Parts: sequence; C-alpha cells; structure tokens
Amino acid sequence: MTKELTARLEIGSTIVRHAIDYFHDNGFVQLMPVMLGKSTDPLGPDPGSSILKTPEVEYLGAKFYTMNSMILHKQLAVRELPKLFILSPNIRLERAERRETKRHLFEFTQLDFEMARAKKDDVMKLVEVFMSYLSGALKGDDTARAAFRALGKEPFEFKPPFKVYTTHELEERYGGDWEAEASKAHDQPFWALCHKREFYEKEDEAHPGHYLNYDLIYPMGYGEALSGGEREFEYGRLAERMGADKLSMDVYRAYLDEAKKGLVASAGAGFGIERLTRFMTQAEHVGDVQMFRRVPGEQVVM
Amino acid sequence: MTKELTARLEIGSTIVRHAIDYFHDNGFVQLMPVMLGKSTDPLGPDPGSSILKTPEVEYLGAKFYTMNSMILHKQLAVRELPKLFILSPNIRLERAERRETKRHLFEFTQLDFEMARAKKDDVMKLVEVFMSYLSGALKGDDTARAAFRALGKEPFEFKPPFKVYTTHELEERYGGDWEAEASKAHDQPFWALCHKREFYEKEDEAHPGHYLNYDLIYPMGYGEALSGGEREFEYGRLAERMGADKLSMDVYRAYLDEAKKGLVASAGAGFGIERLTRFMTQAEHVGDVQMFRRVPGEQVVM
Repeated sequence: MTKELTARLEIGSTIVRHAIDYFHDNGFVQLMPVMLGKSTDPLGPDPGSSILKTPEVEYLGAKFYTMNSMILHKQLAVRELPKLFILSPNIRLERAERRETKRHLFEFTQLDFEMARAKKDDVMKLVEVFMSYLSGALKGDDTARAAFRALGKEPFEFKPPFKVYTTHELEERYGGDWEAEASKAHDQPFWALCHKREFYEKEDEAHPGHYLNYDLIYPMGYGEALSGGEREFEYGRLAERMGADKLSMDVYRAYLDEAKKGLVASAGAGFGIERLTRFMTQAEHVGDVQMFRRVPGEQVVM
Repeated sequence: MTKELTARLEIGSTIVRHAIDYFHDNGFVQLMPVMLGKSTDPLGPDPGSSILKTPEVEYLGAKFYTMNSMILHKQLAVRELPKLFILSPNIRLERAERRETKRHLFEFTQLDFEMARAKKDDVMKLVEVFMSYLSGALKGDDTARAAFRALGKEPFEFKPPFKVYTTHELEERYGGDWEAEASKAHDQPFWALCHKREFYEKEDEAHPGHYLNYDLIYPMGYGEALSGGEREFEYGRLAERMGADKLSMDVYRAYLDEAKKGLVASAGAGFGIERLTRFMTQAEHVGDVQMFRRVPGEQVVM
C-alpha cells in the first residue's frame, strides 16, 4: 500500500468521525443500516441506464433486495424519529464504463439523513454549516493534520453560503451535460435546484413541472457531492408519480403498503463519504480512498 | 412505534457515538465496510449448523459473497494500518428457530477491530477500559440520560477487571451448554478463553489443542457480547488448519492468495451494537432495539 493511501484512509476516518459528531450535536439519532430490504430504490425510471441489476436474496420464503439506497426506509423511520441519520452502505452494480467517471463505485457508504417537516432551505442551511464545521474540525484534528502534511495538501476551506442555480440556468449556460463543466468553472461548491427525477422527490405545487430537490456540486471538476429533496408523502401523489414513471411495482410493494398507512412531510439528503474524502484529498479516482477498491470494471483483490 | 423503542434507538445511537469516539481516541483508523467480498467467513467448519446460506452475487463475471463478517478483510488491512476498526454490517441468514435465542438477527452491525502485533491480553484490556468508559460516557450524555429516564432504567455500570475462565472450567461447572447458565450466574461480564473453532484463531503452540481466543459474556442471561482472538497468519498453518476442518476452498480462494503473499501477527475482536444496546436497555429481544426488525423467522415490514 502506498503512503498516499494510508494518509487518505486516515483523513477519511477523521471525516467520518467529525461528520458523526456534527449530526449527533445537532440532535440527530443515528440508526444502524439495513442491507437487505423488501423495498429499495432501483434508482430512476430506467434502472438499466447505469445499474446492471439490483441483486435479490430469498430468505425463508421472502424476497429481499440489496440496498441501492435507504431513502425509502428513511421515509418510514422519520415518522417516529424527527431527525435521523445512517452511515448507509449502498451496493450499486454499475456498468463497467462507469469507472471512467472517476466518481462511481459499486459499493460505497453514504451519510444519509432526514428531517421531519423540514423544507429545502433547512437542509441546504444544515449542509452549509456542516461543510464549514468540517473544514475547521479537520484543521484542529492531529491525525488529519499529519495525514494532510504527508500528502502535501491542505484541507479545503468551505466558505458558505454557496451559490444557488436551477438546473435550467445551468443547462442554458453549460448545455445538457452541465455537471462537469459547471464544476470546473467554480472554486467553491454550488447548489443545483430542480431536477426532474425520482417519484419521491416533491413537485412544486405552485409550479408544476418543477421539483423541490437539490444537489450540491463540488468545484474543480469533482462533480456531485450530495443529493436530496423534499419528499412526496401522500399516497395518492406517490401512486400518480410512480404511474407517470411507469415503474414496476414489485420492488415498491412493501413501501407502498406503509405509505398507505401514512407518511409525514420530510426533507433530507445523502452524501458519499468516499466522494467527500476524494475531494478533500484531491485524489484522482474515488477508488483511491478505499482500503478495498470497489471500482466498476476493475479486478477486485478481496 | 412505542416510546420504549424510541428510547432504545436513542440509547443505541449514543452508544455508537461513544464507541466510535473511544476507538478514534485510542488511535484506531475507521474503515468503511465491505458488503460484497470475494471471500467471507461462512462461520465454522459446518456452515449448515445455524446459517442457511451465504448469498452469492455475480457481477461483471466475478463471484461475490454477502459478508457474514469482515474478519478476513481485517487481516489484510492490518498489514498496513496497525490499528483499525469498522462499523461492519453483517448478513447472517440464520434458521428461523434462532429467533428463540433472543439474541440472533439476520442483519446486524458489529464494531470490528484489529491490532497488529497485539496479544490476547492487549485486546482484553482495551475492551475492559472501553466498557468502563462507556458507562461513564452514557451517564454524562444528555440524550442517553433522558432516554434511560424514559425507560425507567439506569445504564449498567461495568466494573472491570472481569473474571476470566477457560471454556474447560465453564464446561466442567455448567455443562457443555454453559453459556446461558454461566451468564445467569454472574452480575458482571466475564471472559471465556480457549474455544475450539475457526481456522484463523491461533492455536497455542505451547499447548496444542488450546486456542488463544476469547469471548466476553454479558451477565444476567444476556449471553455473548464479544468474540475475538489472536490470529493464525502463516500460510502453512492456515492451510493445515483449513485442511483439518475439511473446508471447501472456493469462498477462501481470494483470502488464501493474499495470505500466500504474507500476513502479519494480529489480534482483535468484534461486538454487536444491537446486543450491547439490548444489554444496556435490558430489552427482551435483540430485535427490540432495531428500527427495522431483522429477527429470523419473523415477518419483515420493509
């Protein structure tokens, strides 16, 4: 193993520690992850687009899926715990070509959080304060300081508030494939609002065809940092949105049964620990921050 | 959801926080978990005994197993990171009858740690200091204090050093099935040394047929808390032990390839977060501390 990888692992370790501290300090309850779920999100109306399959496991007569994301579980849990987070390992069996993006892995961990009754501005604010907190915490952490010194780098200084754009503005300026170009053109993270995507992300009732979701994009070409949104939570709306997306219902059956009993308004987000570590350490590939590399299309040691 | 479950989840959350702090404070690097591995431990020479199967996942022409445990990965990682830990989600598809033990789950999270060049006494000492630290940390934690008050309970006061027995002594006193009886007969945790079990747990060279491993057992009938050992790390010894256990080699191929390149002497252990939370909150069943219950043979909501 190279000295660089050791330093990156040490920095990743301190990032997780301080991230967890921040969410605990802000009144979030940490839940343990689910790895096999009766529902998961196959990620988008066309799961074939980048993910080859969602593995299924039969156990005692029931069918489970390995988790692409805990988003649907968060929506159930937030009915009872108004502020929660999970260090959630996700399996996403990406096509081999995704290795080229330098930011996709077929296994990674995201810090996934959800807040009952929150609006998008609440989440965006919380994330900005977290980023700023993290810069300070890493500077004050002996392990992180030594590891950054070994890499010959400084921890990135996040300076919120971050710029806010709609995807419509970004498309107009940078074209349909705006993420890479826009990321290169910035030296601080920025928000991209209003993505037309998953059924559970809330449509803006005042502006149909617009969505109350948000991504945070790292600067300097590192691309997506975080993704989240306010949630659709009324059964009728969920069924309507799922129908419009022509989703196969099997994987959502357990979720819809719970949605019928009632969900609550919430908003949240998730950010990948490995992507954050890659950004902070300016690693070439997100796989360069993993002890056990999980890069699509690459040979795996163990 | 009951108020009791909310309180237990809050206590579980603070336990994780303080556990992570303890390991960071003691110089351990936190790694992110692996969920799909080319090798995992099917748990014992007779995997049919309590675990129905270890699910397999094909991905881009390679075969992966869902992780029963990260023990083999820890042994690889400790070559480079002399003190490491992982909050490791494990899938163990236990037979339905295991629900009755009240302490088995088919998904749970263990805090799994490993130390290069450590001996069993080093690990036992670290665990005792951790337990004692945890009692104090929970008493000083506002969230935990409020949650214990809501349950009408006090956090258990760990008072190390804990008593130490060999399994031979325990068998003599309580019979072959000593764990439940011995656990009921104690009011503090105790150590049980020298278990004849997995091939990677080091045999005592001075006393063949004896093993340098250790379990910590909770008192008052709660049973096993933690399991660990010094490791076999020489390729020849590993092959010999595996041969004696008549293990099928397929699941160990990737591990053995690495072992051939060289492993290092180490010792470590893993303890289940849910079992620790169950013990601290005196819950009837370990499933009673999970937001998403994963009890063998029970219907799963999602």
